[in-house]
Amino acid sequence: MRVLVPFDSRTPKTRLSPVLDDDERHAFARVMLADVLAVLQRAGHDPLVVATGPVDCSTPSVVDERPLTTAVNARLDETPSAVVMADLAMVTTDAIDRLLSADGEVVVAPGIGGGTNALVVRHPQFSVDYHGTSLRDHWERARTVGASVTTVDSFRLSLDVDDPQDLVEVLLHGDGDAAVWLREAGFRLAENDGRTVTMRSGDSS
Amino acid sequence: MRVLVPFDSRTPKTRLSPVLDDDERHAFARVMLADVLAVLQRAGHDPLVVATGPVDCSTPSVVDERPLTTAVNARLDETPSAVVMADLAMVTTDAIDRLLSADGEVVVAPGIGGGTNALVVRHPQFSVDYHGTSLRDHWERARTVGASVTTVDSFRLSLDVDDPQDLVEVLLHGDGDAAVWLREAGFRLAENDGRTVTMRSGDSS
Repeated sequence: MRVLVPFDSRTPKTRLSPVLDDDERHAFARVMLADVLAVLQRAGHDPLVVATGPVDCSTPSVVDERPLTTAVNARLDETPSAVVMADLAMVTTDAIDRLLSADGEVVVAPGIGGGTNALVVRHPQFSVDYHGTSLRDHWERARTVGASVTTVDSFRLSLDVDDPQDLVEVLLHGDGDAAVWLREAGFRLAENDGRTVTMRSGDSS
Repeated sequence: MRVLVPFDSRTPKTRLSPVLDDDERHAFARVMLADVLAVLQRAGHDPLVVATGPVDCSTPSVVDERPLTTAVNARLDETPSAVVMADLAMVTTDAIDRLLSADGEVVVAPGIGGGTNALVVRHPQFSVDYHGTSLRDHWERARTVGASVTTVDSFRLSLDVDDPQDLVEVLLHGDGDAAVWLREAGFRLAENDGRTVTMRSGDSS
């Protein structure tokens, strides 16, 4: 199946700025993208990167400077299509298989906090809206156009990497280069007040 | 299968104190427990509540005042046994079916942040350790005793309700009385700086 992978190549992962500088955020975002593309290809699918600027990768890509919602909707005319976020650093071929083989005119994989981390669209009238609590908007949109909805219950698809705390999950569960990148950058797991956190070599905290 | 459901009836859900007072935390924890027990029973299993104090419920229960790890290990001699946390307010029969039908001498359902939200134990030498990053400890313990490990990839099993931000997931995904309880207590979803949060009637924030 054709799988759109939106990627912000300009200002990626700004919420990681407390722990990664600008160059590091670009590099880490690029490594997560490569992990996601590799998993999609191993699962037998054809990713198309939809980026806000040029991306140097061997996977087909297009540049679309418009907002995420507009850029994705412009490419949903081909059905079925899927949309998988570029920061699902814990994704596996099993999780992708479950997503893409699930029945339903619209298949959604919820993210923590009401996001929509992955979607399959098999209904011509469905469109995305990534602003706000997108999961609710997508359920509502599917109802409006009369599309059946299936929700995929996957921990790995629910984990997008936005905040420093999300790096815990990458170190615990990531099988790809993003976890390697973090370890080489000095990140490791630690415990603080009964919670698992990340620390970086040199951190005095 | 016999399913142990540990429950802190004394000081439940202390991390929810910024949004729920003491009586409310007791009531909400009790409603989540009832939801989990109902799902386990609908899925055809026999829950046993292992509580730190008396619990008024129709499900069989025992009081064990010892720490969680000790109280659970004292009851793992019967194999297979399962352990399901009492605060999995988004759990469904489908998720329980996937957990309890998964192969493996030890089956784990990871929680966000390195916890172990649910376990199936089919190996006589395996024991739990809920202190710290329990998921890693459980992987390690299984390796040590030579038990095969399976990880269940479930968003619904990964969501335990500890912090105020977790209430977002209950309102979005909960099918049980916990979601009803929150709505009746005045909680609703809102957006703040691009993130989905909960607000409570009367909140001025």
